[in-house]
Amino acid sequence: MTSPLRVAALGGGHGLAASLTALRRLTPDLTGIVTVADNGGSSGRLREEFGILPPGDLRMALAALSGDDEHGQRWASVLQHRFAGDGPLAGHAIGNLLIAAIWERLGDTVAGLDLVGELLGSKGRVLPMAAVPLDIEADVHLVSAPDGLTIVRGQAEVASVDGQVVSVRLDPQDPPACPEAVAAVHDADWVVVGPGSWFTSVMPTLLVPGLRDALVGTSARRALVLNLRGDRETEGLSATDHLEVLSAHAPELAIDVVLADSSVVDDAGHLEATARQLGARLVVDDVAQALGSDQHDPTRLAKAFGRFLTPA
Amino acid sequence: MTSPLRVAALGGGHGLAASLTALRRLTPDLTGIVTVADNGGSSGRLREEFGILPPGDLRMALAALSGDDEHGQRWASVLQHRFAGDGPLAGHAIGNLLIAAIWERLGDTVAGLDLVGELLGSKGRVLPMAAVPLDIEADVHLVSAPDGLTIVRGQAEVASVDGQVVSVRLDPQDPPACPEAVAAVHDADWVVVGPGSWFTSVMPTLLVPGLRDALVGTSARRALVLNLRGDRETEGLSATDHLEVLSAHAPELAIDVVLADSSVVDDAGHLEATARQLGARLVVDDVAQALGSDQHDPTRLAKAFGRFLTPA
Repeated sequence: MTSPLRVAALGGGHGLAASLTALRRLTPDLTGIVTVADNGGSSGRLREEFGILPPGDLRMALAALSGDDEHGQRWASVLQHRFAGDGPLAGHAIGNLLIAAIWERLGDTVAGLDLVGELLGSKGRVLPMAAVPLDIEADVHLVSAPDGLTIVRGQAEVASVDGQVVSVRLDPQDPPACPEAVAAVHDADWVVVGPGSWFTSVMPTLLVPGLRDALVGTSARRALVLNLRGDRETEGLSATDHLEVLSAHAPELAIDVVLADSSVVDDAGHLEATARQLGARLVVDDVAQALGSDQHDPTRLAKAFGRFLTPA
Repeated sequence: MTSPLRVAALGGGHGLAASLTALRRLTPDLTGIVTVADNGGSSGRLREEFGILPPGDLRMALAALSGDDEHGQRWASVLQHRFAGDGPLAGHAIGNLLIAAIWERLGDTVAGLDLVGELLGSKGRVLPMAAVPLDIEADVHLVSAPDGLTIVRGQAEVASVDGQVVSVRLDPQDPPACPEAVAAVHDADWVVVGPGSWFTSVMPTLLVPGLRDALVGTSARRALVLNLRGDRETEGLSATDHLEVLSAHAPELAIDVVLADSSVVDDAGHLEATARQLGARLVVDDVAQALGSDQHDPTRLAKAFGRFLTPA
């Protein structure tokens, strides 16, 4: 009997949820490794109140891995629920509150996420990329000050900045990686990076030193999934520019496959050449929910992954 | 095969949790029917924010019915957890927040409680006594104004009032009962009332008209469990006084068995005679956690219930 393909997927937010939803159709041995730099919304409020890792993207990744049966689907839908109204709880996702309570109770981040995964009947596992909450700091050409670089701080602030982000770094710059996430990258057959907010969800996963070393040193093959258009952070950046941003943030990281939706390929020759500089072959497929959508379709994404995700 | 004994237990707070913890050792066919007049603490805040039934006593009853296995016990301990600190979430039990979120999501009180029961692997079922949140209004001889009766409003205020409560009523006075609770009382072999805060948890269960009619009309036998000493609400009231309070609030309700801890029986003849006026025989046993404790011991309580809880 062949053991199932081991896959680790890195990123955050809706992008990671889409890749996990697709990948769970291909393998049960799946680890989501999640950016923990969010400082906005429900996660930001919980981070401020309790000093914990922002739980929102972890919750979304857990929901993406939830079981297909009625039990898993019902609990995933409950944990994604946000309180309505304008009172003290309004806007909090109950899954974020549950994760925060379990962490406070157990005092163990990974065991707490495993417990929520058990509730959801999750295939695979969800882990934070770092053991401590992080902040993002970006160098930005602001629309209001285009000639110089302005430092913008905070994931929420960078994600919505009116200007062109050039590069990001973490604060603290040298956070401890989550050891289980490092092990999952080392043990994987394939590592999948992206899609997702390029500067605030995807690049941060390459900036935690211990995790970056694992990504560079693993014997796993590496796939990079490019975004669709329509992300505010990367407005005006071409698919080729996305690859160059990656190179600038993790120059030593080789990639085996770059997966791009056909809608983002303006100049296939140029994109292919840039991918080749990373060590990658370019796979072009239709993976958007619809023409012009900024969301990946999990079924199409699963089909595209199936074209190249094979045992080592 | 004999079908299991069907028992409905009414009350609130720690008292109901104790009786449910005891009763689940005797039968799996158990329904907790919970007072929904709490206006203090986490429940009061949620009631104010969302206009929902106060979830706290429902959560405590669900936890009391949780499965004996590791899964049930772990989730019961998680749902009982209260956030620490002094931020916006401090003091909220996560189980209360989960119940509130599920209600908001499902729009169905009973289905929501059943879902939490399923998570806990609960034996039996927990239901609210009424379909709408209630308030308690009490006539009190205040220590500061002992000659007249003062109206005190709110379960939290009545429970901690400096004075002697004489009687309580509900606001609204004629709330709709929870239909499933009415059915459980009609279908029961035994109904167990108390222990618990006599005026703010136990008497209210007799004041919802539809539920009171069921309690009076059911063919089930009825047991009343008297409190231990030490409850602030009923400081200075003897065991006999407790029975007289019951009679005054529900004159048409006959009782079959009155269970009293030996420590509260000062004048056995007088207590026995008062019980007989309600139609009841008196059962005296040692059911406290320790001498002088105000908490019932579930194991001792189960043993005492076992002496008289027999199929009809």
